[in-house]
Amino acid sequence: MLIDDLRRDLPADRLVQDPDVIAGYLHDDAEWAPHGKPAVVVRPRTAEEVRSVVRACVRHRVPLVTRGAGTGLSGGANAVDGGVVLSTELMSAIREINPMERLAVVEPGVVNDDLRAACAEHDLWYPPDPASAPWSTIGGNVATNAGGLCCVKYGVTRDYVLGLQVVTGTGELVRLGRRTAKGVAGYDLAGLMVGSEGTLGVITEVTVKLRPLRDPEHTVAGYFSSVVDAGRAVAAVADAGLTPSALELVDRHCLAAVDRWKNMGLAVDADVVLLGRTDTPGAAGEQEAERMLDCFHRGGATWAARSTDQEEADALFAARRLAYPALERLGPVLTEDVCVPKAVVPEMLARIEATANRHDTLIANIAHAGDGNLHPLLITPPGDDAARERAQAAFHDIIADALDLGGTVTGEHGVGLLKRDGLAAELEPAVLGMHRAVKAALDPHGILNPGKVIPD
Amino acid sequence: MLIDDLRRDLPADRLVQDPDVIAGYLHDDAEWAPHGKPAVVVRPRTAEEVRSVVRACVRHRVPLVTRGAGTGLSGGANAVDGGVVLSTELMSAIREINPMERLAVVEPGVVNDDLRAACAEHDLWYPPDPASAPWSTIGGNVATNAGGLCCVKYGVTRDYVLGLQVVTGTGELVRLGRRTAKGVAGYDLAGLMVGSEGTLGVITEVTVKLRPLRDPEHTVAGYFSSVVDAGRAVAAVADAGLTPSALELVDRHCLAAVDRWKNMGLAVDADVVLLGRTDTPGAAGEQEAERMLDCFHRGGATWAARSTDQEEADALFAARRLAYPALERLGPVLTEDVCVPKAVVPEMLARIEATANRHDTLIANIAHAGDGNLHPLLITPPGDDAARERAQAAFHDIIADALDLGGTVTGEHGVGLLKRDGLAAELEPAVLGMHRAVKAALDPHGILNPGKVIPD
Repeated sequence: MLIDDLRRDLPADRLVQDPDVIAGYLHDDAEWAPHGKPAVVVRPRTAEEVRSVVRACVRHRVPLVTRGAGTGLSGGANAVDGGVVLSTELMSAIREINPMERLAVVEPGVVNDDLRAACAEHDLWYPPDPASAPWSTIGGNVATNAGGLCCVKYGVTRDYVLGLQVVTGTGELVRLGRRTAKGVAGYDLAGLMVGSEGTLGVITEVTVKLRPLRDPEHTVAGYFSSVVDAGRAVAAVADAGLTPSALELVDRHCLAAVDRWKNMGLAVDADVVLLGRTDTPGAAGEQEAERMLDCFHRGGATWAARSTDQEEADALFAARRLAYPALERLGPVLTEDVCVPKAVVPEMLARIEATANRHDTLIANIAHAGDGNLHPLLITPPGDDAARERAQAAFHDIIADALDLGGTVTGEHGVGLLKRDGLAAELEPAVLGMHRAVKAALDPHGILNPGKVIPD
Repeated sequence: MLIDDLRRDLPADRLVQDPDVIAGYLHDDAEWAPHGKPAVVVRPRTAEEVRSVVRACVRHRVPLVTRGAGTGLSGGANAVDGGVVLSTELMSAIREINPMERLAVVEPGVVNDDLRAACAEHDLWYPPDPASAPWSTIGGNVATNAGGLCCVKYGVTRDYVLGLQVVTGTGELVRLGRRTAKGVAGYDLAGLMVGSEGTLGVITEVTVKLRPLRDPEHTVAGYFSSVVDAGRAVAAVADAGLTPSALELVDRHCLAAVDRWKNMGLAVDADVVLLGRTDTPGAAGEQEAERMLDCFHRGGATWAARSTDQEEADALFAARRLAYPALERLGPVLTEDVCVPKAVVPEMLARIEATANRHDTLIANIAHAGDGNLHPLLITPPGDDAARERAQAAFHDIIADALDLGGTVTGEHGVGLLKRDGLAAELEPAVLGMHRAVKAALDPHGILNPGKVIPD
């Protein structure tokens, strides 16, 4: 029996079989994605313990789902019937922060914001900043190749992963990647693990690249009377050759929800707010902020200004980060994550608006607008099945529109369960075949997060 | 017969069977790496033609070696007996430069410097700049994940590849990756292709990310009386938290060889020259240059100054780029490519010096010192077999020292043939097993550049 093996190989307190406790490990934050009932939850403390878990799963051919904080939005961490859920929550040590090599070595359960804070003490910066940064873990960020607000200038998690320690699908504990600044010794298997959503290996340690702490940012805020106008301002910023350090779109549904929750006194006398930032130092930064402001005006802003009040600017960005949990309080939220070429951001936003009308569905919008990564949030009243069906139809239309405009079905949340059909629509059959071949090569027993990512 | 299939499927002028012409396609620029005698060289013009070649090779189980300009330094493009050599030289169109999306789409045979020049017309910049940039192709750069001088600040080829069109080992023509700024739809197969040295697919198109043209650079030059002192200055730059846009080391052997060849009037009254650059705009850049100068002095520079003469600065960097071909004129050069943590650059340079003495071998040094990527150049008199054996022994000792100091056997040149043993020494057996599994998954017939990268 699997359980006997786990009891033999792990200290007793690593196993969770109490159904009430297991209930907290059944699924991630993706509404409407199905989940199963696991046989057991394990919370290992070491890579060796993770290896024991994987080996037990290999011996008994039992599915293994790895999860960090469960903040994922695609169902990638959802439990499988009769399987094992492996939570990395007890592997939360920051092992090394090395200013000279500009790298950090962390266990997978380290919370993103905790790493950021620890780096700041050394005047260093770990850029990837998903909105879930206060809760999500580096292991989960790596597994989903998480993005965030500063990606528009600084790239995504993939761009910061130097090396990984991983337990493979055959139960081997291996090191992939490197600690040096450069290296091309063999295939980029560390890179292949990034974004593979627990289907190719279980991450037990992460080595990330760091940057020096950056200069304070200038903030530009703009109010618009439609998402399409705001989209035009975004396209204008790209067209002007600017490189903002953030360019976020938040609509009034989101601002109102945050305000009702946190009472932040946010101005919501606009349909859409666009928040731009630049961290270019000195006079060049001042100039960039002015040029961004000009783009906002050209996009049709009803009001726009450079923020002189740092607290006010921070409050607006905090509201952006809180938009998702704030909306969740109002009812089930189905989160989209399409990414389209910058030139078609206005067109895509217009299509989302048309989709909302066509399906009589409330769609709030937040977006990492600067890189065309849009998060329409489909909100339904709790218990209204008809509304839910309409929202599902809207969800599919948005995916189809994104593909039609040359975009992708997932910019940063991952495929998980919610985007498997989308993946099949986006990728050629031969490319799906390559996915299956790689999966079979590295997880020959098919135990690692089966049913996720790759369509049947 | 393979040849019959190729004659049937391709226009006649695509095939080369004249031994005198084939002689120019036998090997890359890696001295001492063995090569075979191919049955035919093909020069396709389109992705469909490439597919025909791969399919013919699959049908007849014939090895296929893909090559760009043949400037590789590890034997990765060396011909295999009885196989096909596919040259991408006729696929040299720049298909698109898109300022708004900040990307370019090119055929694999586009020369690196040609892409750079075309981008500059749009005020855009393609950063990866291997010293071979005037000759090497983007396809080859992608296949080897080429680095260069500006990697120390801007990263390597991998960091700029958004998408690829590839013919797989089963002869399917597929698109991997994306055109959008972000995307996590499935495994990062485009990333897996980067640096796989033609063993997983044949690249027929490359979509690269671009950056805005940057500000002019400030140059700092320092003379040192030993490589170890220069190494100390490099470590001081890293320790000071500076991010130079280039930090190159060139020793007097290299400068003298370039000067003898090009008559540039280079000052060679120092054993080692360190060249630093910063492109941070405005006053911050001035300050960074001053701080770099200070680090050079602290490292023990006998003379150091900020270059006020742009021509002189450019001449020094041109000399750096010409060092390798200049030395090649003097005799066979065996090029090393180890990369070590920045903190141990002085120690590694000291060990290289000791190795040169121990094996009575002339070792010249160029280095992308800022990221610890060292290129000791082992020079032997033509025809001196004993010297050649001593150089081989030195080559192996340098690899062993790099691994001992936590480095990698190849920072940017790739594994090819010369570093297969090094790869086996660097990677755990289980990781080599993962390489073999991925190779078998994507090239099930074993026709793509067999015998390269992965040790037997």
